[in-house]
Amino acid sequence: MNTHIINIGDELLIGQVINTNASWMALQLNLSGVNVSKTIVIADSEKEIENSILSSLKEADCILITGGLGPTKDDITKTTLAKLFSSPLIENKEVLENIKNIFSLRGFPLTSTNRKQALVPKDCKVINNPYGTAPGMCFEKDNKLIISMPGVPFEMQNMMTNYVIPLILSHYKPIAIIHKTLLTCGLGESFLSDLIEPFELSLPKYIKLAYLPSANFLRLRLSAKGENRDSIEKELNNQVNKLLPLIKDYFIGFDFDDPSLVLAEELKKRKQTISTAESCTGGNIAHRITINPGASQYYKGSVVSYSNQTKIQVLGVEKEFIETFGAVSREVAEKMAKNVREKLNTTYSIATTGIAGPSGGSEEKPVGDIWIAIACENGDVISKKFNFYSSRENFISRATNQALFMIINLLSTTEI
Amino acid sequence: MNTHIINIGDELLIGQVINTNASWMALQLNLSGVNVSKTIVIADSEKEIENSILSSLKEADCILITGGLGPTKDDITKTTLAKLFSSPLIENKEVLENIKNIFSLRGFPLTSTNRKQALVPKDCKVINNPYGTAPGMCFEKDNKLIISMPGVPFEMQNMMTNYVIPLILSHYKPIAIIHKTLLTCGLGESFLSDLIEPFELSLPKYIKLAYLPSANFLRLRLSAKGENRDSIEKELNNQVNKLLPLIKDYFIGFDFDDPSLVLAEELKKRKQTISTAESCTGGNIAHRITINPGASQYYKGSVVSYSNQTKIQVLGVEKEFIETFGAVSREVAEKMAKNVREKLNTTYSIATTGIAGPSGGSEEKPVGDIWIAIACENGDVISKKFNFYSSRENFISRATNQALFMIINLLSTTEI
Repeated sequence: MNTHIINIGDELLIGQVINTNASWMALQLNLSGVNVSKTIVIADSEKEIENSILSSLKEADCILITGGLGPTKDDITKTTLAKLFSSPLIENKEVLENIKNIFSLRGFPLTSTNRKQALVPKDCKVINNPYGTAPGMCFEKDNKLIISMPGVPFEMQNMMTNYVIPLILSHYKPIAIIHKTLLTCGLGESFLSDLIEPFELSLPKYIKLAYLPSANFLRLRLSAKGENRDSIEKELNNQVNKLLPLIKDYFIGFDFDDPSLVLAEELKKRKQTISTAESCTGGNIAHRITINPGASQYYKGSVVSYSNQTKIQVLGVEKEFIETFGAVSREVAEKMAKNVREKLNTTYSIATTGIAGPSGGSEEKPVGDIWIAIACENGDVISKKFNFYSSRENFISRATNQALFMIINLLSTTEI
Repeated sequence: MNTHIINIGDELLIGQVINTNASWMALQLNLSGVNVSKTIVIADSEKEIENSILSSLKEADCILITGGLGPTKDDITKTTLAKLFSSPLIENKEVLENIKNIFSLRGFPLTSTNRKQALVPKDCKVINNPYGTAPGMCFEKDNKLIISMPGVPFEMQNMMTNYVIPLILSHYKPIAIIHKTLLTCGLGESFLSDLIEPFELSLPKYIKLAYLPSANFLRLRLSAKGENRDSIEKELNNQVNKLLPLIKDYFIGFDFDDPSLVLAEELKKRKQTISTAESCTGGNIAHRITINPGASQYYKGSVVSYSNQTKIQVLGVEKEFIETFGAVSREVAEKMAKNVREKLNTTYSIATTGIAGPSGGSEEKPVGDIWIAIACENGDVISKKFNFYSSRENFISRATNQALFMIINLLSTTEI
């Protein structure tokens, strides 16, 4: 089967917003075994929307549409669909209830403009949107599905995950695709590919290997496609068992989107806790840890010490220490880690101090230099120096990932 | 005139790579007054490439194509174009010279696979590629331009800037487009649109208004199109001056990508400093502030107090306070703000405490509830309650944006 994605929005056509919806949707569909053969971006124009849907109906089995469902005048996707499918707009009770709930939670009155969001074409199936006022709509024509969703990424993502992908799978029964992703850190793409070349060449034809690099991490994704789910799954696991010993020094975990989730699992398993003291990463380690639900079980907090004064007064690093060794030094990083662990009374702590750039470097301590230290309950402190010279944003991402990798690595070599 | 962009590449259709080329190209074209009415992503497939070009030739005056020009077997754009325009491939001397130069610079031998890159369709104009082996190709058919470029972003960008955009401008002489974007916070899309409805309805036909919402922020974009650049610019400014008084309570600034940059400007202008005490935002306010170069000039740090113990021991919030009012309360938020400001000795401070979810709420204090407090040097504290019920990630983004807005708003009403 064959899917088209149509993203509607003037903001996408003038380059103001990058179309991350298309790639997110394509990735999720692909992981579920659904093939995307075209993605199209068009303006909020009745003629363009009509033409694109009619033309995609000739080529595709399923059309997924995002955008143009807001309450304002430039949003015309719903009225265009109602016209195209000759299905007049009527008020939907459940949608109205949902809109009323959202407005009462936010403490705003329900205006007539917002009430209009509860109008939906008579012949569509409504997809509930717990996070916003625009419902999704599903039409069926000649056994083809045409599904319209809001363009707001997290509203669309929720609908895709909980409703649209399960619906597509039950409607079309595509062939099985199974993926297994291995998260690694510490070896670049070309070196890792040299290391596992014989393995890659020996893979059966229906199993593909992809290299997915991101700030300091490299994911290896093995994807098996076939008619018989059980047999491809068995062979995929077999290949993973061959690959693991080859990459054991760089391996972090399976299938996790983010190393902070690996850390969460490990700490919860051990009933242990962690805290952070961040200078150059500026709160990003804390942010990455706390974005996961339930983080308060194992994370106690951070001191973001963005000035020497904060390092001294809040973290209790001695002034003489900073003057003698400099703020970016092994000594200060270790002291930050030790002190924050004691102050917040956690099993472990992570500290960072470095030069994110673009300025602030010297010949001795260039931009990109960073010390990362980890303190443990028994008094041990591990520290290591890196240079992550790049853009400021990328420096922060790489440093954060490296810090998470260091604590995961330490936990994996420590008995529970 | 009307332009289509066609991006070719399997990696874009499985979601492995986000299509940043389309938005970059659309933005540059738009800034030059060239209208993009559709962008399409297709696979490396002869049939798809042929069909897409033929179909776009019916709708567009100009077609810009990227991707599929590499030396490997899956790259078939060039042979497809040669076939489509009945123009056989011949070796081009200048292109071969360029390829030889590149290989000698990199110290690699020139293989026959690489030499093939010098073959180009007989009837196209070649576009030089100083950064790579794949040349660009420009075809003309019925006074329409069809231009093929490599998919590597910086190679394509160099061709667009130095050759393609000047060529389009001289070939089509497009009309002028000017945009003005206004960043607002604090009023939802539907309320703002009700508020400025008379203004919107009174806009001249050649000026369009678009609403661009993102986590708790709303951008208003006015776009003017016309023959005479000076006169549409004058009228656009005129309309902006009419709009500003209507939205003054929600207005943050012009054309800024991120409110943290507005905050940075305001604090630097005043030579003032800020600190944060974050509970539910978990370090994200600190992260958003410190991602900007030079943040240490005005930002001193944060206490991410992710447990009551941290609120008590590091921030000095009284235990009785938390027991009496609860961690998510006006009293605790204000105390956090006051104490962190004093501890870090800054002009202002921001504190957050709330329930990010998905669990942890109660009937009295539901998921999404958050108190944001700002403390000032003179002892004043402002605090406000919100409910940002949504996904955990979105809750954190919205709360962060709201906190930044509150301090920007306070600064804008305070004399320098």
